[in-house]
Amino acid sequence: MDVISVIRAKRDRGELTADQIDWVIGAYTRGEVAHEQMSALAMAIFLNGMNRTEIARWTAAMINSGERMDFSSLTRPTADKHSTGGVGDKITLPLAPLVAACGAAVPQLSGRGLGHTGGTLDKLEAIPGWRAQLTNPEMLDVLRDVGSVICAAGDGLAPADKKLYALRDVTGTVESIPLIASSIMSKKIAEGTGSLVLDVKVGSGAFMKNLDDARELAATMVELGTDHGVRTTALLTDMATPLGLTAGNALEVRESVEVLAGGGPRDVVDLTLALAREMLDAAGLPDADPAKALADGSAMDHWRRMILAQGGDPDAPLPVAHEQHTVTASATGILTGLDAYAVGLAAWRLGAGRARKEDPVQAGAGVELHAKPGDFVAAGQPLLTLHTDTPEKLPYALEALDDQVVVGPADTTFAGTPVVWERIG
Amino acid sequence: MDVISVIRAKRDRGELTADQIDWVIGAYTRGEVAHEQMSALAMAIFLNGMNRTEIARWTAAMINSGERMDFSSLTRPTADKHSTGGVGDKITLPLAPLVAACGAAVPQLSGRGLGHTGGTLDKLEAIPGWRAQLTNPEMLDVLRDVGSVICAAGDGLAPADKKLYALRDVTGTVESIPLIASSIMSKKIAEGTGSLVLDVKVGSGAFMKNLDDARELAATMVELGTDHGVRTTALLTDMATPLGLTAGNALEVRESVEVLAGGGPRDVVDLTLALAREMLDAAGLPDADPAKALADGSAMDHWRRMILAQGGDPDAPLPVAHEQHTVTASATGILTGLDAYAVGLAAWRLGAGRARKEDPVQAGAGVELHAKPGDFVAAGQPLLTLHTDTPEKLPYALEALDDQVVVGPADTTFAGTPVVWERIG
Repeated sequence: MDVISVIRAKRDRGELTADQIDWVIGAYTRGEVAHEQMSALAMAIFLNGMNRTEIARWTAAMINSGERMDFSSLTRPTADKHSTGGVGDKITLPLAPLVAACGAAVPQLSGRGLGHTGGTLDKLEAIPGWRAQLTNPEMLDVLRDVGSVICAAGDGLAPADKKLYALRDVTGTVESIPLIASSIMSKKIAEGTGSLVLDVKVGSGAFMKNLDDARELAATMVELGTDHGVRTTALLTDMATPLGLTAGNALEVRESVEVLAGGGPRDVVDLTLALAREMLDAAGLPDADPAKALADGSAMDHWRRMILAQGGDPDAPLPVAHEQHTVTASATGILTGLDAYAVGLAAWRLGAGRARKEDPVQAGAGVELHAKPGDFVAAGQPLLTLHTDTPEKLPYALEALDDQVVVGPADTTFAGTPVVWERIG
Repeated sequence: MDVISVIRAKRDRGELTADQIDWVIGAYTRGEVAHEQMSALAMAIFLNGMNRTEIARWTAAMINSGERMDFSSLTRPTADKHSTGGVGDKITLPLAPLVAACGAAVPQLSGRGLGHTGGTLDKLEAIPGWRAQLTNPEMLDVLRDVGSVICAAGDGLAPADKKLYALRDVTGTVESIPLIASSIMSKKIAEGTGSLVLDVKVGSGAFMKNLDDARELAATMVELGTDHGVRTTALLTDMATPLGLTAGNALEVRESVEVLAGGGPRDVVDLTLALAREMLDAAGLPDADPAKALADGSAMDHWRRMILAQGGDPDAPLPVAHEQHTVTASATGILTGLDAYAVGLAAWRLGAGRARKEDPVQAGAGVELHAKPGDFVAAGQPLLTLHTDTPEKLPYALEALDDQVVVGPADTTFAGTPVVWERIG
């Protein structure tokens, strides 16, 4: 087997054989296939695709490149959620303790942000003392004691995917359904969860810009999970405008705590509950009542225990950026446009995100919204507050928002979008 | 400018702008764009193509990545030839001294073999003492004194192409008309020749397997050369069966000397003369008589002086491989098939070629033919002799020839192919 014949096969629109896939993933993981060879193959896959048989084998090969976790010692059923990434998507923060409060075990291995979408670990690291890195035994302890844990995936889990994910990020080969589906599912299957709910985002702030692509991605992942014995469903959810009223690390923690306290923006609460019900159904707990767990404080109680178990202080004040800049409404009327990608890009430029994997993020930076599409606004009223420790970047953040905050006439009939578009699985 | 936006533009079937091309070639040459990024771009170009405007700019950017040679101090007109590579293609060896004998200056910057096609420098290095590496002043001296020089291109000539060529070789992105045309022409234009004849091979032993592709490649290169002020023409020539009766380094030197002595296989003589006439016409010497220069020994005289000037001994015995293995005809009849690619692959496996750039080659290894398609052969008659210093590789070489040496009935009417298919320019 040699790598050039594998690259050529896909380049020339052939179907990769099981042997070719197993070999190339293994050899890349061992460093025998060079990055420049894998990136040529990734681009050929991007442009010529993979069929379901190839995607299934590619996923299995990435799972087999590392260890698999084992939660069989837990007495509770395991349930996990994965989001394909959006702007203001802090749902994991309230969701994991909420579902734990309802009786499932939630082993939430999460990632960091890259580009305009935030990362769950970056957000939680805004909490003083909180640690993302746990050993496998530490993770199991938190899971057993609290019922939920949010931490970084260990290096042993799908190492092929780790290498390939970093490579795709720098070679323009990210937005490919076969590569996205196999990347997500290899990690989730290797993690060993019994059930999985996928939150597939659709819209300007998501990788999938339209419903058809999102449907294909969701169906591909549901099939992969099901084939590996993981009860998998997917919700297609809206990402045309940011989720909630905040995009940025500490800002999103604050909003998540509001939700756990029984308040918070309506769309965040609705999506958190919809995903919780899916997870509890998939975990065999259809009678659990997540709305009650939010209302009676048991979700908040699990949150506090989870943060404490990982070294964080749930009562410590959250970091605040040194500078704030307010954007006001230019006219009176209905806010008709507030583009998710523009807000994500602005938050990123303010310092909430990173350009390279090794860059730090600012805990306090980000964008706070004071109105959402459909709201009536008066000229001069604050629409957005930009937070940053690096005010010299403000002009670039404002540039990202140019023409993306639209106020229409006061008699505009605004057709809102649903939080959840469709369910698949 | 960032490389991901350039990759995405081509990935998404866009046209690269002049600025994007200049920047990416420059940044790759300086090491600011990584190999894995350039290979993703190369695969996107392979699959989505480049138009003539993009190819012209890409070529110009590669020329500008390094130095340009200057032959203005020579009193003779300069003429160069480039072959896209085939099996048994030793034409440069007799051609360069022949054209020099007719009054032109031939600065033949050549390469080494990779894969199943041989390299001119590897062939000449079979001559004891001969040196491929010359400084620019040494090269000019030989050119001025002898009229022809065959040597390695200096590192300063189109360094972007050197890097990209090595990258394409290991990433399955070789057989792309825009990338082949820009690679060849950037080197030839930077070399500074006044006229250029392209020998574009067509058939199983060539990169271009059919006439349409070869025509497109030839037309692209002729246009690139003409646009840069180089008088450029192309011949499309046959590579369905090996050229001459030898494929391998010392074996091909021996055959070249036979041609210079007025003998040699008919197809090698015919193609050498056809290319010589093109070069002399393009150099403004239409009255020169290359057939006479072969017959009267002046070409041989130039050959000997050229070899001597580069440290070689034209009278030294050529290396001979330790082992010979003869393949005989399985039946009596007409030899109808003797596939160029199969013979090239066999020669490569015998040790005449290399798998990696840094591998050595065997001077004596290769394949000697005793018959050519169209010849009558008797059962048991020798058809091929395989030469090698590594007899353990013989079975692999024989495997390459399996079913590729075909003897048809004695009454077969064999329709031969012309040496030259078409002329373009």
